[in-house]
Amino acid sequence: MQNQAVQSNVKPETKTPLDALSKLLEHDMQQVNTLITENMQSNVPLIPKLAEYLISAGGKRIRPLLTLATAQMCDSPMDKVYPLAAAVEFIHTATLLHDDVVDESHERRGKKAANLVFGNQASVLVGDFLFSKSFQMMVQSESLDVLNILSEASATIAQGEVLQLITTNDIETSMDNYLEVIKSKTAALFSAACEVAPLLAGQDADTVRAYHNYGLNLGIAFQMIDDALDYAADQKQLGKEIGDDFKEGKMTAPVIYALEHANDEERTFWQRTLSYKKQESGDLEHALQLITKHNTLEQTIDSAKHYAQAAEQSLHQLPASEIKSLLSDLTDFIITRNF
Amino acid sequence: MQNQAVQSNVKPETKTPLDALSKLLEHDMQQVNTLITENMQSNVPLIPKLAEYLISAGGKRIRPLLTLATAQMCDSPMDKVYPLAAAVEFIHTATLLHDDVVDESHERRGKKAANLVFGNQASVLVGDFLFSKSFQMMVQSESLDVLNILSEASATIAQGEVLQLITTNDIETSMDNYLEVIKSKTAALFSAACEVAPLLAGQDADTVRAYHNYGLNLGIAFQMIDDALDYAADQKQLGKEIGDDFKEGKMTAPVIYALEHANDEERTFWQRTLSYKKQESGDLEHALQLITKHNTLEQTIDSAKHYAQAAEQSLHQLPASEIKSLLSDLTDFIITRNF
Repeated sequence: MQNQAVQSNVKPETKTPLDALSKLLEHDMQQVNTLITENMQSNVPLIPKLAEYLISAGGKRIRPLLTLATAQMCDSPMDKVYPLAAAVEFIHTATLLHDDVVDESHERRGKKAANLVFGNQASVLVGDFLFSKSFQMMVQSESLDVLNILSEASATIAQGEVLQLITTNDIETSMDNYLEVIKSKTAALFSAACEVAPLLAGQDADTVRAYHNYGLNLGIAFQMIDDALDYAADQKQLGKEIGDDFKEGKMTAPVIYALEHANDEERTFWQRTLSYKKQESGDLEHALQLITKHNTLEQTIDSAKHYAQAAEQSLHQLPASEIKSLLSDLTDFIITRNF
Repeated sequence: MQNQAVQSNVKPETKTPLDALSKLLEHDMQQVNTLITENMQSNVPLIPKLAEYLISAGGKRIRPLLTLATAQMCDSPMDKVYPLAAAVEFIHTATLLHDDVVDESHERRGKKAANLVFGNQASVLVGDFLFSKSFQMMVQSESLDVLNILSEASATIAQGEVLQLITTNDIETSMDNYLEVIKSKTAALFSAACEVAPLLAGQDADTVRAYHNYGLNLGIAFQMIDDALDYAADQKQLGKEIGDDFKEGKMTAPVIYALEHANDEERTFWQRTLSYKKQESGDLEHALQLITKHNTLEQTIDSAKHYAQAAEQSLHQLPASEIKSLLSDLTDFIITRNF
């Protein structure tokens, strides 16, 4: 495992707060990576093969990094934190596998999506395996408070995914609906990832809430930027297709804002392409034009900034440290990210 | 909830051990049913709608009944047992939802399968929701031993499902492979359902093992009979299509035994229909003829009897009680069942 960490793509000359956190928490992340590898093993070879396919494709490991960072800030017992950080990554991975089945995705992390390589059936079942394994790892924390937080977060994620499914192709979806979706499907795991180590360390309720709020607001900002990038990203750099959300008719901030500003003709366009799923060549380009016309990417980024600032403010009450500064910088970085 | 229990189809004149257990544990099962209903609620209406569709279709609730029965035998703290029994049923329900997606099922419990009514996407995600909820309920037991048992059982189930997926359409599948599949996908939950309440009651390791072995062997027998019924059942009575396993190319005991006895021509038939999935009209009838010719349903039932007897023997060391007698009778009943 040591090699893997040494080969991490930390480039001192362009060090982002995420790179710096990765570097600082390199030893801890090695322990987590070992647990991740150990817990995806099975005497059914397809399981590690499929899990490895997705997990080795990289990904930022931002969620376990948050768990490790908040743990270091609170002097949490690291032997219990490592399985929790691995569990958080497993929940995320299981969700990705099921998401890609539900969305009929073609690409993930710059590779062909697992459902296309191994089939929907294997993706569903290996997702279930990783979910179950995440619970097994959580139990190792021996903390009922932590188990409550993480099992509730899991249920919230699933609920958010169902809500997203319902709002897909529904152009009446409001920003409130959208916020509920992203709070549930994304931010719930970010907040849990930030909250469990402080809880393990026996921090008081007020402090635990500060960590929770940091994660929650960071997660909302993170997802909003993700949704903006789907209409703006350079495909090669992001490792995912641009316009996926448009093709699927997902109701995300850039489109919801565009609908708020739409004239009759534009509304008819969104209705045809998103509600009725009748898309023709040139439609994505036209959608991008409308998004540009109404500045809705800027609007989305502004909203994301608002949540990033709330995340930053949640940190104020916590004691100063190098990691705290990096978590603070991360709230800015997340807005400008193209990863 | 009271009405639901009162209306249960217990007919004193034809009382099976399962009916008798249901009657004896009626009060306890009402508490479990209340928890089941409460925990499938969500502010996303599709979730209770889909869960209710499957759960209200009935099913035998045999797994939570086993948890309640073993709890009563050990004087387990019932306030902690109820959420565990509900959790066991939720794990089972989530597995059914995902199974039906994976198997592209048409029917379940005498109704159109949920995936056909609500779509695969909703079935995957609501299954995830029920899985997560099951963990939330388990945590209420406040017992790390119990959490270890149930989270391990969940991982084992998922592993068994993946193994089943791999062995499907593979006519080289051995009885050993098949036993591993059914031990994992079915018997692991039966054994966990029987083990958790004794564990909660602080029974010694030897006694807990006896309950575990009862569930494990009962589960294996139950699944073998299920697999026999797929080639023998009266469709109306069972509420599922006959020949489903054949159509999907699932390698179950009746077919594995038939392959052991097959001449060259028969082997070619199984290869075409199961491995190459080239099925024509009349093929199911021919499969049934081969199964009759080689007596493989009888062979399957004989194997099931062997496990049912092992289940019965596991009970010997436990103190006599009315419930113990019914659990003992259940091992016979499970062999002759047509439910």
